[in-house]
Amino acid sequence: MALIRKKTGNFLEDFRLGQVFRHKGGRTLTEGLAAHFTDFSFTANPLHKNLRYARAYGYDALPIPPGLVMAVAFSQTVEDISENARANLEYIDMRFGASVYVGDTIETETTVLGVKSSSSRPELGVVHVQSVARNQTGKIVLAYQRKVQVFRHEPTAKLDLGDVAAAQIDVALELPVYDPSAGYAELAHLSNADTYFEDFNPGDTIEHSRGRVMTDEHIFLTGMLDNTSQVHCNQTMIDRDPSRYLGGKLVVFGGIPFTLCLGLSSPDISDNSLGDIVYRTGRHTAPIFSGDTVFASTEIIGKSDLSGRPDLGRLEVILRGHKFERSAGEEKRVEIFYLERALAVKRRSHYAKS
Amino acid sequence: MALIRKKTGNFLEDFRLGQVFRHKGGRTLTEGLAAHFTDFSFTANPLHKNLRYARAYGYDALPIPPGLVMAVAFSQTVEDISENARANLEYIDMRFGASVYVGDTIETETTVLGVKSSSSRPELGVVHVQSVARNQTGKIVLAYQRKVQVFRHEPTAKLDLGDVAAAQIDVALELPVYDPSAGYAELAHLSNADTYFEDFNPGDTIEHSRGRVMTDEHIFLTGMLDNTSQVHCNQTMIDRDPSRYLGGKLVVFGGIPFTLCLGLSSPDISDNSLGDIVYRTGRHTAPIFSGDTVFASTEIIGKSDLSGRPDLGRLEVILRGHKFERSAGEEKRVEIFYLERALAVKRRSHYAKS
Amino acid sequence: MALIRKKTGNFLEDFRLGQVFRHKGGRTLTEGLAAHFTDFSFTANPLHKNLRYARAYGYDALPIPPGLVMAVAFSQTVEDISENARANLEYIDMRFGASVYVGDTIETETTVLGVKSSSSRPELGVVHVQSVARNQTGKIVLAYQRKVQVFRHEPTAKLDLGDVAAAQIDVALELPVYDPSAGYAELAHLSNADTYFEDFNPGDTIEHSRGRVMTDEHIFLTGMLDNTSQVHCNQTMIDRDPSRYLGGKLVVFGGIPFTLCLGLSSPDISDNSLGDIVYRTGRHTAPIFSGDTVFASTEIIGKSDLSGRPDLGRLEVILRGHKFERSAGEEKRVEIFYLERALAVKRRSHYAKS
Repeated sequence: MALIRKKTGNFLEDFRLGQVFRHKGGRTLTEGLAAHFTDFSFTANPLHKNLRYARAYGYDALPIPPGLVMAVAFSQTVEDISENARANLEYIDMRFGASVYVGDTIETETTVLGVKSSSSRPELGVVHVQSVARNQTGKIVLAYQRKVQVFRHEPTAKLDLGDVAAAQIDVALELPVYDPSAGYAELAHLSNADTYFEDFNPGDTIEHSRGRVMTDEHIFLTGMLDNTSQVHCNQTMIDRDPSRYLGGKLVVFGGIPFTLCLGLSSPDISDNSLGDIVYRTGRHTAPIFSGDTVFASTEIIGKSDLSGRPDLGRLEVILRGHKFERSAGEEKRVEIFYLERALAVKRRSHYAKS
Repeated sequence: MALIRKKTGNFLEDFRLGQVFRHKGGRTLTEGLAAHFTDFSFTANPLHKNLRYARAYGYDALPIPPGLVMAVAFSQTVEDISENARANLEYIDMRFGASVYVGDTIETETTVLGVKSSSSRPELGVVHVQSVARNQTGKIVLAYQRKVQVFRHEPTAKLDLGDVAAAQIDVALELPVYDPSAGYAELAHLSNADTYFEDFNPGDTIEHSRGRVMTDEHIFLTGMLDNTSQVHCNQTMIDRDPSRYLGGKLVVFGGIPFTLCLGLSSPDISDNSLGDIVYRTGRHTAPIFSGDTVFASTEIIGKSDLSGRPDLGRLEVILRGHKFERSAGEEKRVEIFYLERALAVKRRSHYAKS
Repeated sequence: MALIRKKTGNFLEDFRLGQVFRHKGGRTLTEGLAAHFTDFSFTANPLHKNLRYARAYGYDALPIPPGLVMAVAFSQTVEDISENARANLEYIDMRFGASVYVGDTIETETTVLGVKSSSSRPELGVVHVQSVARNQTGKIVLAYQRKVQVFRHEPTAKLDLGDVAAAQIDVALELPVYDPSAGYAELAHLSNADTYFEDFNPGDTIEHSRGRVMTDEHIFLTGMLDNTSQVHCNQTMIDRDPSRYLGGKLVVFGGIPFTLCLGLSSPDISDNSLGDIVYRTGRHTAPIFSGDTVFASTEIIGKSDLSGRPDLGRLEVILRGHKFERSAGEEKRVEIFYLERALAVKRRSHYAKS
């Protein structure tokens, strides 16, 4: 007879260089999950919500938007990698692959690339990992690295410090075939007229007009991704030791402002995109709490041809999220999110009436 | 290089008489959207949630209830018509057509019928429009007019004042065929026994017994409809200038109390209905905020035969919504919603054991 | 002309011994409902969310987890049985039968087994019922008894006091066939490695590590089950007479902590289970309100063979839920839920690499 308290997740000292985690659970994308985690974010691209439009582009079903693919694949790694994390530090080289649809099942595995200790805060360290998410046929849908700040459980435990090289992952965005007879122009009124590849000018910054407050709904949104991190949902744990946690209250899971910033920017940036190619680097620069209104802006930093696809261009941007903090009548703009992003954007010459 | 702030939506001076908007996005109804926006409202009619029952009535799938059809079709017009509105003034001659199912795609277009300025509040005016929503085969699912109070952007901008005639829209509620061998009576226990056509008496008013508080969930419910109006979700915008907005706080999208009043009334009025025919006129008579409990009552105003359908009758009612405001211990009943509504209701003689 | 206030639900004096209610509505399980009511609870068993895994076990679709089957079947009885209840007292002999999938329709009927008056509180009494839920083919998916504390409407109304015998209901958990060639071991990384039948020791108690705060979302979750009880959603009703209601505020529907405790315990208890066999007895020992964080623990009380299934074992446990109440800096653990539960659990010898 025993009273058993199982440890969940790993602490800094548990990670071994080169160790591979095949994460539990897996997740089949349903219409319920897709509606919930897409709709909260104001995603504007008709590809993700208008089946008549998606079919004209050669899809049999509504493709899942990149924010949800990311959030599902990321959340599957939480229990093993970041359940005992203080903060996620950086997303690195996040590349999209095969299209994902309702009915597809995503499973993820993660390799430990690095473990570092912190000199200033010995109770913390940094774990660097590489994760690969595949669908039920084994095709890669997302591959990325991330760095995460993890708590140490035993102050004197030995760490497996160091780095190993990341594997080269062969992954490239799957794009629908361009079909000159598809009648794209007849559907052009369903997306914005001024967001084709030709419309973007490097150097410009677009302040997206809309904002969206996050409420306690973040707890449900996070749970539905099977993200088990307790800092998003265990109010009693926070109340017992508020100073240990960011802001001393439940913090919103980063995948939510990530997806929301993508959504808020979509009418101006991606509603004529056929997909996100890569997020070179990204980070949460300040936490979000229930009650914060999230805004976004996008800086256009580059344009180039997309090899083999004269109908598309590669657009390079920086997506930033921000909120406004108000105290003593003064309002301060606080950056909350930073993402270097490349998209495959349709050219007006090929998709809309000239 | 430029800092770009795109204007979203149209202001009073942007509307041209006779102008046609083909709205962006479109929307395929999924099981996620249907569950969410039907279930919050306590809709009781088994047609919308029991597939065994719906099949006995000749449907291959669960038909989408009228409140959701309305909310989706309406929300698609928001960015172009009412993103910069202060309030929706009136729904006019809202007629239902083809049945809508999960998997159907709804797209909407709107014609400007009238523009009026306000003498007392020069920063405001009224826009009168006609909207038509179609499914992926081109069949009309909903057609209606509405009047909306819209902000002027430039105080001295020229307005295209006046009126043009509404188009005659040929739309009639699609009804399942009556099949005497279908065994309806064996399923009669699944709906109320006292809500057949024979049971209603013009002049009676039914106070529906249930109430339902609206919480911050309204923000999610509104966003999932692609309704982009900022007065429902941008807390920062409200905080900056509360006096500009109704009640000085986030206001609940009218489609929510509209649908909720339909739902609260359904056990007494429409759980033996085969569909809503027309909403002759409707309006929100007071705003709803998070924390308000919504109630409803229905006044029976008329009954008539439905041409060609001896199994059904046409029921005319007024649906009213209300809430209670409490101050200094006193409770005041406040009407929030008014809708003149006609339904096609089953006759006991044809659908239930006598 | 009349003002009609229909009574909803039954009061103590309305119940007749042996009376049978064929409940209204019925409910087809959709992907929207399944996502919502499964995901909020952190259910870990891959059978309910990974279609690749479920197919390997012989299912054509994701089976619905027991918590949702229970919540739907239970909620269908609320209007007739417990809309006017003060509290649900006990679940008795709750047995699962046929597997339930998205697309299945559940309908429920209930027989009155007993009516008892209360000597100390004459405005209350106890109603004892037996409910049976079937799918669209007539197969039983759940059968159970419950006792509920119901308000009397007229203080002097005559009661039909007494008891009648419960019907013998032939129901047993439907289990997928064991197929030695199915390659179960290749999927074993998707569930925990230490929750096979061999791993449990009677006498042990496992404190499940995670907690989950319930927010106002409970109102939506309850409504989506067609649970019409006003104590969960009618704030105005509570405000008018708080002392009449548990805690003087909206109380969370018991099906929510029930399902949440099942979910919180699942990584340690049931992620290698093929189904819940029976809940012998269960009760809510304290109410839950918005803002409470729910925790759970499980005591292992017995193990036995499962007849005809050498690949499985029968695990007997007690699942307890609790929350922490804090006042004056002191934290008190309060039990909120008690459930005697038997599960069919996989043996490592048959499902995982040795």
